[in-house]
Amino acid sequence: MGFTDIAHWARQIRSGDLRALARAATAIENRAPSATDLLKELFPHTGRAAVIGITGAPGAGKSTLADQIARLCRARSRQVGILSVDPSSPFSGGAILGDRIRMQGHYADPGVFIRSMATRGWLGGLARAATDMTLLLDAAGRDVILIETVGVGQAEVEIARLAAVTLLVLVPGMGDDVQAIKAGIMEIADVFVINKADHPGADRLEREIRASLSLSMRPDAWMPPIVHTVASEGKGVEEVLDCAMRYLETSSRDPRRGVKLWSLRLREMLRERLLESVPPERIEALAQAVAARRDDPYTAVERLLASVKNA
Amino acid sequence: MGFTDIAHWARQIRSGDLRALARAATAIENRAPSATDLLKELFPHTGRAAVIGITGAPGAGKSTLADQIARLCRARSRQVGILSVDPSSPFSGGAILGDRIRMQGHYADPGVFIRSMATRGWLGGLARAATDMTLLLDAAGRDVILIETVGVGQAEVEIARLAAVTLLVLVPGMGDDVQAIKAGIMEIADVFVINKADHPGADRLEREIRASLSLSMRPDAWMPPIVHTVASEGKGVEEVLDCAMRYLETSSRDPRRGVKLWSLRLREMLRERLLESVPPERIEALAQAVAARRDDPYTAVERLLASVKNA
Repeated sequence: MGFTDIAHWARQIRSGDLRALARAATAIENRAPSATDLLKELFPHTGRAAVIGITGAPGAGKSTLADQIARLCRARSRQVGILSVDPSSPFSGGAILGDRIRMQGHYADPGVFIRSMATRGWLGGLARAATDMTLLLDAAGRDVILIETVGVGQAEVEIARLAAVTLLVLVPGMGDDVQAIKAGIMEIADVFVINKADHPGADRLEREIRASLSLSMRPDAWMPPIVHTVASEGKGVEEVLDCAMRYLETSSRDPRRGVKLWSLRLREMLRERLLESVPPERIEALAQAVAARRDDPYTAVERLLASVKNA
Repeated sequence: MGFTDIAHWARQIRSGDLRALARAATAIENRAPSATDLLKELFPHTGRAAVIGITGAPGAGKSTLADQIARLCRARSRQVGILSVDPSSPFSGGAILGDRIRMQGHYADPGVFIRSMATRGWLGGLARAATDMTLLLDAAGRDVILIETVGVGQAEVEIARLAAVTLLVLVPGMGDDVQAIKAGIMEIADVFVINKADHPGADRLEREIRASLSLSMRPDAWMPPIVHTVASEGKGVEEVLDCAMRYLETSSRDPRRGVKLWSLRLREMLRERLLESVPPERIEALAQAVAARRDDPYTAVERLLASVKNA
């Protein structure tokens, strides 16, 4: 595809053409070379959207919250993009679609663009694809972009950190789980959401979060607010969105924040590009030698490193 | 450190010297260059240990199960190594230690060597360190090595897959969570453990697992057994260990299994080595240019790739 075609495609996307947008999303998913050319062209026109990451335990109500935030944004005449990032089966590469079905309430509204994304193999690539998709939606004039992840593992935390503001959704009565989540991801939350706050234990959970916050050391001066919601009824959703927007406004005044975000994103993109440069057959041949104890894994990795550098 | 010192150190470790072993574990944790030399020396003497990965949701009882398997192995006069792999806070790098305290029942027994490992920053390194530590314990004559991970995210799944046999610990009454876990990691389980099987819902959970297994496509002919346990009382633990050993025996007859394992491990080791070769300041300088929209992220990554190749 020539430069003029790319420039034309980019203009269509920026003018809000939905078919051009959908074609670009598919190009990103398929890792088409044209996707990178297009994103280079679009990049100068990004940086306007509010990019909100939503993470938390399975069953905490993240999809419902994303859905309600989208509704609220639409009521305020804002254009919305939703990226649902799913874990996948390491063998089959499949994704969960159950939760996604709820999103179909927006199906007929062109003001909400929804895309589900699944992990491609265990070495990742999802973080880069999520960044690409976010930039695309940003350039396409989506005012608010929601990135919803399914689990609370390291990979999901990484995706959530690529957003400009991260919501952590918890529910009362999780017991030991809260402890486990705490150590892993409490510190990435810019806004805490206690969903299903009409269930017993919401106040206790809030106290636990406060106690944990008092120990944490954020590099900025922001004190993450704690919002109670009943997302299924839309309760508290407006406050969540307002808190997220307030954080974005505050952090946009700190130039270090943007640099930090881009450092994370660049490292993730680099990681993926590096691994793509090693042919799987080469790794398998060395794995055979190691499995047979003809070679040791440390020497094998040194050989692989040399072949990356000569690629 | 010279070659003769490394050779001496390796001999000490192979003869069962605990101080030499502990010193090597610390060298691996500190990423000392001597650790790689040592592991190259030890590698030909590895491949004998039964390496068992234990993964599952927080609160499912993985530590208790690991503890009970260790007890059983000791009763059978087997030497044991336990690696507890913890998630960490992305800001502070800290690890959960709560669960570890239960392991202290083995504190005075030199036949159980326990080491906790935490994620070093969000780009990982833990998978490589877990592989190093496993090879070390294997060469040191540990008959059984248990690798216990805390969460069920992508990172934990990756660690669990580095083991020769993987146990997935579930508990009854998880509701939606089982659905979420299913799509992510059901297919990596070689043995299913339904822990807290005296709680209501154990039979329903077993039916759900069976239904999910009937859909899965394993590359081998193994049908993963489902074992009911009450790990806190030691119930069912012997059956779990026997199932794991039976899987190891079956899979050791399949040469592809070893090659597949080593392919995964080599890719993970390579990934880490590649990222180490890019100075953080270089990434930060490019991130500044991108955040200011002076450069686009795709061109920035191309620049980083070039500097890796020239490193």
